[in-house]
Amino acid sequence: MTPLPSGRALVPFVSVDHMMQLVHRIGLEPMLVGLAHRIEADFLRWESFDKTPRVASHSAEGVIELMPASDGEVYGFKYVNGHPKNTRSGLQTVTAFGLLADVGTGYPVLLSEMTLLTALRTAATSAMVARHLAPRDARTMAMIGNGAQSEFQALAMKAVCGVTAVRLYDIDPAATAKCARNLAGTGLSVTVCRSPEEAIEGAQILTTCTADKQYATILTDNMVGAGVHINAIGGDCPGKTEIAAEILHRSDIFVEYTPQTRIEGEIQQLAPDHPVTELWQVLAGRAPGRTYERQITLFDGVGFAVEDFSALCYVRERIRGTGLYIDLDLLADPDDPRDLFGMVQRSTPVAA
Amino acid sequence: MTPLPSGRALVPFVSVDHMMQLVHRIGLEPMLVGLAHRIEADFLRWESFDKTPRVASHSAEGVIELMPASDGEVYGFKYVNGHPKNTRSGLQTVTAFGLLADVGTGYPVLLSEMTLLTALRTAATSAMVARHLAPRDARTMAMIGNGAQSEFQALAMKAVCGVTAVRLYDIDPAATAKCARNLAGTGLSVTVCRSPEEAIEGAQILTTCTADKQYATILTDNMVGAGVHINAIGGDCPGKTEIAAEILHRSDIFVEYTPQTRIEGEIQQLAPDHPVTELWQVLAGRAPGRTYERQITLFDGVGFAVEDFSALCYVRERIRGTGLYIDLDLLADPDDPRDLFGMVQRSTPVAA
Repeated sequence: MTPLPSGRALVPFVSVDHMMQLVHRIGLEPMLVGLAHRIEADFLRWESFDKTPRVASHSAEGVIELMPASDGEVYGFKYVNGHPKNTRSGLQTVTAFGLLADVGTGYPVLLSEMTLLTALRTAATSAMVARHLAPRDARTMAMIGNGAQSEFQALAMKAVCGVTAVRLYDIDPAATAKCARNLAGTGLSVTVCRSPEEAIEGAQILTTCTADKQYATILTDNMVGAGVHINAIGGDCPGKTEIAAEILHRSDIFVEYTPQTRIEGEIQQLAPDHPVTELWQVLAGRAPGRTYERQITLFDGVGFAVEDFSALCYVRERIRGTGLYIDLDLLADPDDPRDLFGMVQRSTPVAA
Repeated sequence: MTPLPSGRALVPFVSVDHMMQLVHRIGLEPMLVGLAHRIEADFLRWESFDKTPRVASHSAEGVIELMPASDGEVYGFKYVNGHPKNTRSGLQTVTAFGLLADVGTGYPVLLSEMTLLTALRTAATSAMVARHLAPRDARTMAMIGNGAQSEFQALAMKAVCGVTAVRLYDIDPAATAKCARNLAGTGLSVTVCRSPEEAIEGAQILTTCTADKQYATILTDNMVGAGVHINAIGGDCPGKTEIAAEILHRSDIFVEYTPQTRIEGEIQQLAPDHPVTELWQVLAGRAPGRTYERQITLFDGVGFAVEDFSALCYVRERIRGTGLYIDLDLLADPDDPRDLFGMVQRSTPVAA
């Protein structure tokens, strides 16, 4: 065998198993709160990020995307796919992993699973946004779409916004039963509903998170009354929306990063100059959020690279001293950096 | 501990150590030939690739890039940095890793180190191009810039094009000494030169591969005679070139992917409509390559995502049955794909 690589060549890797252990160690709700804080802090320094719409490779079956972001000191990116038909063959619709690197040297400093972390950061972002935009006394959330994201959304809204009751609906009752079962014992009051109309009864926060890739209308115009906050997170790629255009016209719309949301979000149904507000401006006090009681606020959430950056930075901080990672021999690191060839020559072949 | 993840959640990972063992098992020259064949085969089906200029994040110290490509069945991308000052602190100028994924499901199928593999594919590409464009009887190569790439370039030109002699020059004599030492015993006739002028004496192939990020003129106009092939691979980002513009005007210029090379290559010195030929057209017989004896052909090589795709596919094929990889628990794979939350709940916390 060749000598062990130097520390510089080793990149900490957080596997799915280690991420689950990290969740248990921190606690799911405290972790969602911690992620929401970190994401909010990064949104507050929005202008210090090098931002770009994600780079997508579309196919008939789905999309594979790369989402880079940098604050000038740390660079991060996420690989993520979206394949709605995957569940039919027992696969995840969305899988992801991500990386942080040092901008000064270009050397990676963290590789992490992000299938689970994406679910956590998406829920943390929704809850952070709802804390700013939802009616102050919102305690009940309708959760339409009870797939892989649903429990995380419910618990983030509980931990960050003080939601106490969730009303569940999914076109597939088995999904709703799964979600209700998972949320039993979390302290949330859970109601299983047989229609979207039943789910939104008395709810001040309406979350839509369905998976089909089509122009769907999960919420129709007559279903949505005044004074609610809509957390629309399932419309997240071209040709995939959930909310009737009429509702969008009655709402004040808040987005993460306008150039990306115009392409991917609910607002792809609207004119390209339809007014929207970027969330960081609300957080920074540069634009109004909720201003009157009967206002409908709508978060057209598509997921943005800064949120992944925040989540990876959070994980990088929290794994220190836990042992919840392994060191990967990802980078070649010859003694003389110009002698990559010599490094190979000097490595001893191993018998087959 | 939680149960072992299913096979679907595991992604084969080729570390630097495993890549070095793979090189020893196949043999460096046969591997360079194999890579050149695979890259040529993929260039011949150029139009079947989804191509995009790489996505770059620039800083004062360097650049971090993501390079995606897809042929509709397999998707690949490479992470690569370029930090010229890194060598001063004992780090590599370029480090890289890459991934292949199944387009149909979005699931990653290979993660691999690419610091070493990039050096191999860059050399294999140069040699494949020279085999088509260099004078037929080219046996001597001048190698200006004797850094990490130099030995791989020399051996690829030997294995693919039949080069028998290399003439080395670097502004740093220690780099030349390192290169000469490494090439001893490879069968190449090696001459250490004290000037670029001396290095190009009698050479039919002139390779420039220097690292400084500036508009340099490694080759000046009066140094380059008729009937040679210039393999210019060190000008590969905005503001970094090696060849005097006058030489470019006397040459027929060949590029990988025009939109990217206009930004990054030697031709950033020329008008944006200066005629260039894409290599795949030469390979496919759609455009002429070398047509007369006194012609100067110039490969303005910047490195393109398809070459990384080809190299990753080659590695994926060649590691089968070798054990030269480990399985990484990179993807969450719950029994019920909609039950990511339940997977976390059911994972048993491990005591700290």
